[in-house]
Amino acid sequence: MESLKRLPGIGEKSATRLAYFLLSAPHDLTFELSEAIARLQRDTVVCDSCFTLSDRTPCPVCAHPGRDTTLICVVEEPADMAAIERSGSFKGLYHVLGGALSPIDGMGPDSLRVSELEKRAQVDGVKEVILATNPTAEGDATAHYLADRLERSNQERGSNIEVTRIASGMPLGGDLEYADHVTVSRAIRHRRALAD
Amino acid sequence: MESLKRLPGIGEKSATRLAYFLLSAPHDLTFELSEAIARLQRDTVVCDSCFTLSDRTPCPVCAHPGRDTTLICVVEEPADMAAIERSGSFKGLYHVLGGALSPIDGMGPDSLRVSELEKRAQVDGVKEVILATNPTAEGDATAHYLADRLERSNQERGSNIEVTRIASGMPLGGDLEYADHVTVSRAIRHRRALAD
Repeated sequence: MESLKRLPGIGEKSATRLAYFLLSAPHDLTFELSEAIARLQRDTVVCDSCFTLSDRTPCPVCAHPGRDTTLICVVEEPADMAAIERSGSFKGLYHVLGGALSPIDGMGPDSLRVSELEKRAQVDGVKEVILATNPTAEGDATAHYLADRLERSNQERGSNIEVTRIASGMPLGGDLEYADHVTVSRAIRHRRALAD
Repeated sequence: MESLKRLPGIGEKSATRLAYFLLSAPHDLTFELSEAIARLQRDTVVCDSCFTLSDRTPCPVCAHPGRDTTLICVVEEPADMAAIERSGSFKGLYHVLGGALSPIDGMGPDSLRVSELEKRAQVDGVKEVILATNPTAEGDATAHYLADRLERSNQERGSNIEVTRIASGMPLGGDLEYADHVTVSRAIRHRRALAD
């Protein structure tokens, strides 16, 4: 119970409930759970190429021969990459920044994997960098900073890598009536021909 | 208390609290509230032109000389129109459908103001119809239905009115990690050059 209570969101009551559940749980469940927790840190590595967390490097996405190596999708955290993978909408490679710019929290460009991104973008064959940092103040600022850096890099090297931003607009199931006005404003401004 | 209890979301306790508050409230507040409630239905009319609810017809938006009459933004309800007005991102006219297609609820094209939209779109000078129904199953289906109708109308009349849909994507402050996979998928698919 003492160990369980140190987990976030688990208080006295939950810890007691979990402990009693585990006491009477099937042995294969407790064994698997204990093993999984032990393996978690022992076997997790950072991918040399995209910097996601994985059980091997290069990670399965970077190592997959079917991925489109001309596309790099820049995300803040491994969890964002996982979300895009779950959506099944992207077949290129990723680049995990390790956060977003946030001067207040002391997160400058040097705390993020920005120069690593520049190096990867300069590799032959990269055609487009998709900035998929979150649409928050920090994520938007990070996207603009990266766009500037990549643009400068384009000019210095005479390359022509396209830099795009994920779409802002109404989320699925959203209601204009309850959406914030910036989202409504972007949904109107970025309207598109009704083809897809 | 009996009257207050008939309002949605107001139970026994709230009704009691409100009634006692009103008992001891300043006279100008109770007078204003009572007048406003009385006026609400007496003075609310449907705009002849865009079908929103207003205190006059044509409504202030339709009557405003500065609005761009070449743009019509189609919304489900007056509240959606109010949300877009609050965002300050649109200077054209509106068309309030009165809901979305929903066969289960018996809402077919005849229950909505579809033929009225067709008639308005045929008026000289309309260049674009923006389909701003909500990004729900019903709203999306309604948008596709309207696009088909407007397209057919274009062909029959040899006109060329553009039909667009508000942007789908990540809402402001959203996090890819917690977004549903359709929203993530649309955010990736509808990515755009980082110009604005």
